[in-house]
Amino acid sequence: MNPQVGIIMGSQSDLSVMAEAAQMLEELGVTYELTVVSAHRTPDRMVEYARSARERGLKVIVAGAGGAAHLPGMVASMTSLPVIGVPVKSSNSIDGWDSILSILQMPGGIPVATVALNGAKNAGILAASMVGAFDEQVGKNLDAYKKGLQEKVEQSAQEIETKGWKAIVKK
Amino acid sequence: MNPQVGIIMGSQSDLSVMAEAAQMLEELGVTYELTVVSAHRTPDRMVEYARSARERGLKVIVAGAGGAAHLPGMVASMTSLPVIGVPVKSSNSIDGWDSILSILQMPGGIPVATVALNGAKNAGILAASMVGAFDEQVGKNLDAYKKGLQEKVEQSAQEIETKGWKAIVKK
Amino acid sequence: MNPQVGIIMGSQSDLSVMAEAAQMLEELGVTYELTVVSAHRTPDRMVEYARSARERGLKVIVAGAGGAAHLPGMVASMTSLPVIGVPVKSSNSIDGWDSILSILQMPGGIPVATVALNGAKNAGILAASMVGAFDEQVGKNLDAYKKGLQEKVEQSAQEIETKGWKAIVKK
Amino acid sequence: MNPQVGIIMGSQSDLSVMAEAAQMLEELGVTYELTVVSAHRTPDRMVEYARSARERGLKVIVAGAGGAAHLPGMVASMTSLPVIGVPVKSSNSIDGWDSILSILQMPGGIPVATVALNGAKNAGILAASMVGAFDEQVGKNLDAYKKGLQEKVEQSAQEIETKGWKAIVKK
Amino acid sequence: MNPQVGIIMGSQSDLSVMAEAAQMLEELGVTYELTVVSAHRTPDRMVEYARSARERGLKVIVAGAGGAAHLPGMVASMTSLPVIGVPVKSSNSIDGWDSILSILQMPGGIPVATVALNGAKNAGILAASMVGAFDEQVGKNLDAYKKGLQEKVEQSAQEIETKGWKAIVKK
Amino acid sequence: MNPQVGIIMGSQSDLSVMAEAAQMLEELGVTYELTVVSAHRTPDRMVEYARSARERGLKVIVAGAGGAAHLPGMVASMTSLPVIGVPVKSSNSIDGWDSILSILQMPGGIPVATVALNGAKNAGILAASMVGAFDEQVGKNLDAYKKGLQEKVEQSAQEIETKGWKAIVKK
Amino acid sequence: MNPQVGIIMGSQSDLSVMAEAAQMLEELGVTYELTVVSAHRTPDRMVEYARSARERGLKVIVAGAGGAAHLPGMVASMTSLPVIGVPVKSSNSIDGWDSILSILQMPGGIPVATVALNGAKNAGILAASMVGAFDEQVGKNLDAYKKGLQEKVEQSAQEIETKGWKAIVKK
Amino acid sequence: MNPQVGIIMGSQSDLSVMAEAAQMLEELGVTYELTVVSAHRTPDRMVEYARSARERGLKVIVAGAGGAAHLPGMVASMTSLPVIGVPVKSSNSIDGWDSILSILQMPGGIPVATVALNGAKNAGILAASMVGAFDEQVGKNLDAYKKGLQEKVEQSAQEIETKGWKAIVKK
Repeated sequence: MNPQVGIIMGSQSDLSVMAEAAQMLEELGVTYELTVVSAHRTPDRMVEYARSARERGLKVIVAGAGGAAHLPGMVASMTSLPVIGVPVKSSNSIDGWDSILSILQMPGGIPVATVALNGAKNAGILAASMVGAFDEQVGKNLDAYKKGLQEKVEQSAQEIETKGWKAIVKK
Repeated sequence: MNPQVGIIMGSQSDLSVMAEAAQMLEELGVTYELTVVSAHRTPDRMVEYARSARERGLKVIVAGAGGAAHLPGMVASMTSLPVIGVPVKSSNSIDGWDSILSILQMPGGIPVATVALNGAKNAGILAASMVGAFDEQVGKNLDAYKKGLQEKVEQSAQEIETKGWKAIVKK
Repeated sequence: MNPQVGIIMGSQSDLSVMAEAAQMLEELGVTYELTVVSAHRTPDRMVEYARSARERGLKVIVAGAGGAAHLPGMVASMTSLPVIGVPVKSSNSIDGWDSILSILQMPGGIPVATVALNGAKNAGILAASMVGAFDEQVGKNLDAYKKGLQEKVEQSAQEIETKGWKAIVKK
Repeated sequence: MNPQVGIIMGSQSDLSVMAEAAQMLEELGVTYELTVVSAHRTPDRMVEYARSARERGLKVIVAGAGGAAHLPGMVASMTSLPVIGVPVKSSNSIDGWDSILSILQMPGGIPVATVALNGAKNAGILAASMVGAFDEQVGKNLDAYKKGLQEKVEQSAQEIETKGWKAIVKK
Repeated sequence: MNPQVGIIMGSQSDLSVMAEAAQMLEELGVTYELTVVSAHRTPDRMVEYARSARERGLKVIVAGAGGAAHLPGMVASMTSLPVIGVPVKSSNSIDGWDSILSILQMPGGIPVATVALNGAKNAGILAASMVGAFDEQVGKNLDAYKKGLQEKVEQSAQEIETKGWKAIVKK
Repeated sequence: MNPQVGIIMGSQSDLSVMAEAAQMLEELGVTYELTVVSAHRTPDRMVEYARSARERGLKVIVAGAGGAAHLPGMVASMTSLPVIGVPVKSSNSIDGWDSILSILQMPGGIPVATVALNGAKNAGILAASMVGAFDEQVGKNLDAYKKGLQEKVEQSAQEIETKGWKAIVKK
Repeated sequence: MNPQVGIIMGSQSDLSVMAEAAQMLEELGVTYELTVVSAHRTPDRMVEYARSARERGLKVIVAGAGGAAHLPGMVASMTSLPVIGVPVKSSNSIDGWDSILSILQMPGGIPVATVALNGAKNAGILAASMVGAFDEQVGKNLDAYKKGLQEKVEQSAQEIETKGWKAIVKK
Repeated sequence: MNPQVGIIMGSQSDLSVMAEAAQMLEELGVTYELTVVSAHRTPDRMVEYARSARERGLKVIVAGAGGAAHLPGMVASMTSLPVIGVPVKSSNSIDGWDSILSILQMPGGIPVATVALNGAKNAGILAASMVGAFDEQVGKNLDAYKKGLQEKVEQSAQEIETKGWKAIVKK
């Protein structure tokens, strides 16, 4: 089956962050591909990737980059697919503000769906929700995932209420 | 035909900003509904809206709010649909930073697809691209829209190059 | 005796910060309960907690959360009790600015009493002062606590003036 | 009847902002007094105000100030009553950041319950909620106030849904 | 004579700011061309402009853009010429921070010579200084320009010292 | 009598702000001179001004500048006199942050006594307090000035308490 | 001989930073005293310290504090002496912004001479320059100190130029 | 052959950052000199360096400094050569904001070509591009350098696509 989500990043050094998007998609039953595409160092590769994405069957693109992060916005300018941008707090970033603002503040006409700083996990879930809006099974997987989050909080609450917080802080 | 996109906002005062999302969806041939839902003043209404959204046939929710903007994130916590958040620079906002950060910086597990400050127009396009990923006609409408943006820039460039920038600045 | 203060937090990972509120309340002779309630992962639990708080005898709620921190504001929207918000500098926070702004900048009508970043200790004291405004003994405990702070500074001053600062810096 | 809430501000120029706290308290049935006390220009007056507040019967102090805003924190250091701080965006303020940070970021031991920038209305509601935690009638007034907020949103929603948003934007 | 400096901007709405670069180059005796090239709306045009710049005889490119400003960095990625970036405080910009950071914070390997917010005048002077480093006449024009700046300050100083500042403030 | 305080500014456009320093010094009985000196446009004039200041009898220099404000720090590097820096929110400033940081954050060894944004009035008072530390009469003038501030607040308080705040807000 | 400079700080934990002011004053031949005075924990002690400073012979007060730092401004409100404020980046500070703004942004009438974050060394030099403006010997000591700074840079430059930067980076 | 680029920095402690500019210039075949020049500690040396730069044959100056970084702007005020400023995140810097703003936000008339925080490598490339605009060989070296960047990304992409990202993350 063709991948539904394309995950790209500006540099292999972003992989430790961006891998969480892939893991989330696997968990939610959505197929994906993952590679490196740099807006500034491989502009031709970026153009080709963005322009062929839809015909290759992708439904969503997840793009992560740090510093003056142009990859998500440039890809969005060359496809009609939704593009999710992950601001990466790379080593040359000023506390992440540069990554966030250069992805989020796109001009009218070319949106990027921006998630939290280093929020690749959420990018994966968001991509799944876009697929899941049209795919019942993925929708159910998302519901099950949320149910799991809820149960973990409830167990945690029960543990604290039963044992008392002092026992847990000591651990 | 059931609406595919639900547009909600925290207050009627956000309507002048959020109307651009509706206009964009009309232009791109995507059906929508639009109403007011406040996280803080009508929490029950918000719960009901979010929980019934999928079964009512919506594919995407666009939620706009200002200041400590909790509406997009809270709605996202109660649906498996993708939620697009529009940070509104409301009168009580600190240059928009509060709206942006309280929508963008969602915890792991509950993403919100955040667009630029006051970026309701882009929220409309983004919602259309999510629908368009699965709907050829909407995809083509998006391509046509982008083509239009390109042509406007090219005409503008031609005008400047032909007349000279001084003629235009004087206007 | 029923607890007078309810301490809640979005995640067990906030406990090391939020425990200081509990410790302070114990020191000041105010009863409390402490548990985990997540706005985004357990919205129903949050609604139930907030709506039952007053009838269960609570006088104040202390709520801590990080990143796009919606717990304090959402709880405040569903109770007439005062809600103290503690912005937690969680791992996904941008230097704490997101936590602060998404708790502090509540819209007109729904206040949250915000304390400093990671200021759970002060949240405990503030909760005690709300109880103490109507309870002489707690008021006296607060006065004694302040007296203690003053004496520590005075001893510290005396030590520096007597020994000289060089002896202390060397330590 | 003695006033239950004391509203003070650093300068008469803050009155247009701070008056909203007084209006809110009147609406919620809580007695109050209001005057000018400057930390920097009338330090003795401030000491006297803070130290006598409790014995004069006050239950809460609301203090507003702009720029390097020391009034709320200094008053809090001299009373066991809860102090609510209102950061005022005065003419000499840098977009309000100075007012917010110099009120919010109090050191451990001396909390100030900070509300949003220019959030005097919310300061009034918060003060009422502290009184209302121990006073059934004020608690009911707060519930009625929240009910009113909810109804206004619901009417607004109905208006938009009935007339359509275009009719309203045109107005 | 072929133009030595290419001035481009993302939108005709940037022209009122960017025109200052052209005026400065005229004043300093450096030839230039000026047009509109949008990274997001005309990516192909941008690629062509950047890749042909050197062979067309340009020595420097000045690129202005606002919000998530990708034009200067993308052009820099596709030419060996120096690229000067002008952060424009466009209507959708957050006080200019987005424009500045998305131009300034380029990753290692692809520099952009960034000037102050709306600093198109300085971009023109900087471009002239790059040409002037290899062209004696332009170098002399720059020296004369600086001499003019100096004389204006000296005249201003003399006016204030002679007439007294009160006479001038009253004007 | 030789002037005791030298007031300088980077541009005549700063005069409307900086004039407040001169007015304050007149009110406090301290002699001064005032002129324009630009770090970037008249570097030689700046060197001469700074190096001759002490021998000409000045006791303090007040220097105001906006944007990347180098005048106060550069002058401080060339005199043993105390230099007070006034960050001016000039038209090219980013909300004043650039002016503040480029004056305040001087490296170890070369301090500048920085006052609030546009705080020329306070720069005048601060300069007077430096003179007044060694001059009884100026010290008394400062005490009288503070007394005046106090009385204005007390009158304002009395007015509000007597007439009621509603009468004043209506005015 | 009576101390000419009084160094105070809000907490003994600030001593490691503030000790640099004392060391600098010793090096420059200016007498001083050093102790702990807290605005919030020992307000009476602060009032007494500030009001008696001038009659005890002090010429300058150096006050350091972190977070919502009220000590420098409150002391300045109660003396005619110049007060130098040192923003301390304490553990509860948000990257130092709170300390800086709550010291720097004093209202009109009550200046504080603010130095860089953790800039106690510069506070010592600045205090010495205020004394040195009226004391030839201290003025000469300051000149000698600056000469020393210059020589260190020149030696450093010579070392790099002679050995080559590669030899030094390797060290 | 005379050096074409002069690299200067405010302190030897900046050398570990600034050395990257020298390394880049060597790699790109551009001659350079490197030394220490401090705006605040050796103002005369700075004046001499800046004023003699052009006649000594330099084509570009690269200047790095931290905190209130005046070196790049002051040098730019005294030469007609282009000056590249490198904001250094020195130990006394507030997350680099002070360095960036005091270099970037130069007033009209005196530009500095600012690169990213700690971006000395990019400063070297930018200086080379200015030389390369007039020197075919250096232009070719720059093209080859970019080609190398591109190949590294392509190899990295191939590695990930071939081995799978999981194999690489595990490494």
